[in-house]
Amino acid sequence: MKHFYAIILICITLSSALAQSETDSSRLKKIYDLALSQPKGYEWLEHLCNKIGPRLSGSPQAQQAVDYTKKIMDTLGLDRVFLQEVMVPNWKRGDKEIGRIIDSKKQKTEVRVVALGNAVGTGKKGIEASIIEVKSLKELAELGKSKVEGKIVFFNRPMDVTKIRTFEAYGGAGDQRRSGPSEAAKLGAIGVVVRSLTTSIDNYPHTGALAYQLNVPQIPAVAISTQGAELLSKMLKQDPQLKFYFRTTCEMLPDALSYNVVGEIKGSEKPDEIIVVGGHLDSWDLAKGAHDDGTGCVQSIDVLRLIKALGIKPKRTIRAVMFMNEENGLRGGVKYAELAQKNNEKHIAAIESDGGGFTPRGLGVGDERAFEIIQTRWAKLFVPYMVEIQNQGGGADISPLRNQGVPLMSLNVDSQRYFDYHHTEIDTFDKVNLRELQLGAAAMAGLIYLISEYGL
Amino acid sequence: MKHFYAIILICITLSSALAQSETDSSRLKKIYDLALSQPKGYEWLEHLCNKIGPRLSGSPQAQQAVDYTKKIMDTLGLDRVFLQEVMVPNWKRGDKEIGRIIDSKKQKTEVRVVALGNAVGTGKKGIEASIIEVKSLKELAELGKSKVEGKIVFFNRPMDVTKIRTFEAYGGAGDQRRSGPSEAAKLGAIGVVVRSLTTSIDNYPHTGALAYQLNVPQIPAVAISTQGAELLSKMLKQDPQLKFYFRTTCEMLPDALSYNVVGEIKGSEKPDEIIVVGGHLDSWDLAKGAHDDGTGCVQSIDVLRLIKALGIKPKRTIRAVMFMNEENGLRGGVKYAELAQKNNEKHIAAIESDGGGFTPRGLGVGDERAFEIIQTRWAKLFVPYMVEIQNQGGGADISPLRNQGVPLMSLNVDSQRYFDYHHTEIDTFDKVNLRELQLGAAAMAGLIYLISEYGL
Repeated sequence: MKHFYAIILICITLSSALAQSETDSSRLKKIYDLALSQPKGYEWLEHLCNKIGPRLSGSPQAQQAVDYTKKIMDTLGLDRVFLQEVMVPNWKRGDKEIGRIIDSKKQKTEVRVVALGNAVGTGKKGIEASIIEVKSLKELAELGKSKVEGKIVFFNRPMDVTKIRTFEAYGGAGDQRRSGPSEAAKLGAIGVVVRSLTTSIDNYPHTGALAYQLNVPQIPAVAISTQGAELLSKMLKQDPQLKFYFRTTCEMLPDALSYNVVGEIKGSEKPDEIIVVGGHLDSWDLAKGAHDDGTGCVQSIDVLRLIKALGIKPKRTIRAVMFMNEENGLRGGVKYAELAQKNNEKHIAAIESDGGGFTPRGLGVGDERAFEIIQTRWAKLFVPYMVEIQNQGGGADISPLRNQGVPLMSLNVDSQRYFDYHHTEIDTFDKVNLRELQLGAAAMAGLIYLISEYGL
Repeated sequence: MKHFYAIILICITLSSALAQSETDSSRLKKIYDLALSQPKGYEWLEHLCNKIGPRLSGSPQAQQAVDYTKKIMDTLGLDRVFLQEVMVPNWKRGDKEIGRIIDSKKQKTEVRVVALGNAVGTGKKGIEASIIEVKSLKELAELGKSKVEGKIVFFNRPMDVTKIRTFEAYGGAGDQRRSGPSEAAKLGAIGVVVRSLTTSIDNYPHTGALAYQLNVPQIPAVAISTQGAELLSKMLKQDPQLKFYFRTTCEMLPDALSYNVVGEIKGSEKPDEIIVVGGHLDSWDLAKGAHDDGTGCVQSIDVLRLIKALGIKPKRTIRAVMFMNEENGLRGGVKYAELAQKNNEKHIAAIESDGGGFTPRGLGVGDERAFEIIQTRWAKLFVPYMVEIQNQGGGADISPLRNQGVPLMSLNVDSQRYFDYHHTEIDTFDKVNLRELQLGAAAMAGLIYLISEYGL
């Protein structure tokens, strides 16, 4: 008889678990169906890119983006929409840059360059000097002061196109842009030219932030298009005495007031447990910031919209955050984590979408324990949507939450096209596909729904 | 002692298997590296799309594409490059089509339409009649002759945007285009307007083949853009008496001589066992045929190029085929299978790439036994490339080989963008990403290398 009851109990447990999973799978289906059939995020993105445009921290457009995304969230019937004040760097590009190769016979060849973000300018006259090509910081160091002093250093190591995950290739080449200027300055260089970080060979220079080291002279630095880099390298081989000229009038103004934009649905049972989803609202000044990271912003708002529109009452609090200043300071992300700590908030998960609005391949979980739980419990639910649970996840804006023990996650998307557009004038709305964008919103909404329902 | 020898034997077997798999994985790595770092297929595709352009069966451009792809293969040092003669339908679109909504007050609204492939024309005067909207062939049949006779039938069932795999959505709506005209004609309709088969709402009409039934009057038929379809449907609700006018001057000329283009590397050990990989060389006349299916063609040639360039001497014969006339006849595919049978050729696998040159998600194997073998033996080798072995595969051009028991396979790619471009003027070279294209060539080359090495 004991066995009988035991079996009955098992049956009840199993069938209840089964029913639960049926509910969850039909919930996910509803989320996806709504995301694909009523694609709001795509409309919002069009406004952000084409009506507002580039939105560098401190710019009027960044403020417009704050106002616009707050306004959208105000219409969604959320429990709370608010701004978090944050002081941001206020870097201005100034005039359109000039880049020029001048060979030994004084023949001039114009090449496309753009100032690196946060760089100092050359002054109105520009700088002209001999140029020396290196492939790495190590190679630069080996050259030593005697070979570098007074020159412009040309960092020309390409991203490794054989990496399947293009972010690995980006990671493998990014030190040139970030650390190259200060490392060159230590050896007496007067300027830096960096090959654009892209897997593509084209004529769009890709900007991006440099990081000047303390107590090292700040020297001007530009990115050159990959076509320009190939040309310069070729000409240098034939004519090592050639000179390079560039002119930038960029400058760093005093910090400006800006905002993170936050929208929230309060949890019905455990309102103190917060799940945050976000992207960054700022973009580079020369990019419309479609894939970087307008898509992450509208997807995050869309998560709230989908949950509200389906009448889901999440047990835990869900928050969408448009972080300000990922590109050249991360101040918004740092501020968000600071306030979370100050306010004793308990974040149980943070998810970022900042890899472009491409087809989702996975939901990445950068915390081993959380990965195991999510993988075991819910991986099957995402199979129909061709989304895996992956054990790599996170994002720049949410990274300051790591210290508070928050499991960091990300929407992991197909990355083949991302660096074609990244930080350039061609990161435009038309490069975003409606379905790919919406699938990303749905995948995040699905995961967030599950976490809000069951915790981690 | 017996045990000792047994263990030694196991060790030898295991380590040899391990070594084998190491060789295979480094082979795959070399294939991928070369595909990504020396992307030949992309160059060929640019020529095919931008120098040759649309290449409908029977057109001069189709012949140029035959000549061009043969010429490319002639440079690859293959063992054999040859043409297979095939007679193809020779349909001509004629003048640019006119489509017009005429409301009860004689107000005219122009809408974009294109003749369906293989359709008869309206004659120079066009046709004007009342128009009746249906969502399915069933709904049409239920209306019966009395409601349909003398009218134009408007098929307006959208593709189901909630399907994650867009080809399923295409399959679910395609009967309207293929069978709609004859079904409408049986009830006395004088013309057909079909909503374009796309998940996108835009103003590009998508052509595609209809299939007239024997002994049913052939009536003219056009595709209307999805924006046009939405407008027409809305206007019809407000004004059911409105008329529709369209004019097409398309016609079917006598069959024309064309060719499949075949390139081959002879197997070193089992030359009689053939692995065929292909795409179709023809495209619609209004499309440059980038994703449909220039990409499949250049990827197939690239498979041979990669294998030759890496000095791999395949044990079995590998053949790349540019099939002619997939779009409006499938004559090339039928001819290829016919000749294979006639010549007693033994095909051990046939792989097609005809889903666009997008990021590979899987290698699809539409044969249970072959799927099990490939999945078990080699799935792991493709993990680093984010490619799964999937149990759905095949392709139109290779489908006639099924009767000969050949396992049919395909490159299964991300399908979100495909139907934005499919059979329209915007299926152009710039929609193809170099890396996505090349990853497809590499995935197929990898699988084909393994099959050529070990058989199935």
